Amino acid sequence: MRSLLWNSEKYEIEITGLATRGNGPVEPESLEKKEQVCKNCILAFITVEEQDNLSETSEKISEEILEMARETGRNLVVLVPFAHLSNNLSTFKIGKIFFDILEEKLHGKIKIERTHFGSDKSLLLKVPGHPGNIRYREF
Amino acid sequence: MRSLLWNSEKYEIEITGLATRGNGPVEPESLEKKEQVCKNCILAFITVEEQDNLSETSEKISEEILEMARETGRNLVVLVPFAHLSNNLSTFKIGKIFFDILEEKLHGKIKIERTHFGSDKSLLLKVPGHPGNIRYREF
Repeated sequence: MRSLLWNSEKYEIEITGLATRGNGPVEPESLEKKEQVCKNCILAFITVEEQDNLSETSEKISEEILEMARETGRNLVVLVPFAHLSNNLSTFKIGKIFFDILEEKLHGKIKIERTHFGSDKSLLLKVPGHPGNIRYREF
Repeated sequence: MRSLLWNSEKYEIEITGLATRGNGPVEPESLEKKEQVCKNCILAFITVEEQDNLSETSEKISEEILEMARETGRNLVVLVPFAHLSNNLSTFKIGKIFFDILEEKLHGKIKIERTHFGSDKSLLLKVPGHPGNIRYREF
């Protein structure tokens, strides 16, 4: 699992198409809304990898997310499936299970939003300049 | 070397402080201007790693940048030192040499801008939704 955590002022995406490629069967989540806007949040861009122990990696990244939220005073995390931090991607099925486990681990500790799994999206990202506002984690 | 390439509509940074940590001696570039705004460009976020063969990795990533520019119709690349794609960073000295070599390899083939090496920055990033607009490369 590889992750980029951003302390973000503003995050906006718009889904422009469903994914057509990936490791194994291409199974995007069902699409409920095309747009998502979040302000003042921790953005967790996460790439689930083929060899991941889902329970262990979700536990470790949940701790990092909560620590960053405490340090930056944020009370919202956005879980963003992001296929661009590794060349060794998990299948869609495993990836989606990971995000379910991670959401469960964070439940009740911070407000949670999720971004759609398995789509092309436009992206607007705004991050204030401060040490520790962008963090890389690899487990 | 690890890199995230973005086909970006808009990129804005403002330097808010010089880096105080890193692998080995902390040697930020001299600071000429605090703000940078680029539109319609390929953004190459690059993490130089300790074991990199600079000549080989710069050659490979220059090819990827030029290919992406051709495919997306962009004529400007912005080379962005980005310490958040690996836990195995090169020293400041080696990192800066890498960007000099990369700029030389791209010279005359595409318009080039560089982002300051060794600082905390605010970031605004806008990427249109289209397959292939975000690419991960690791060499």
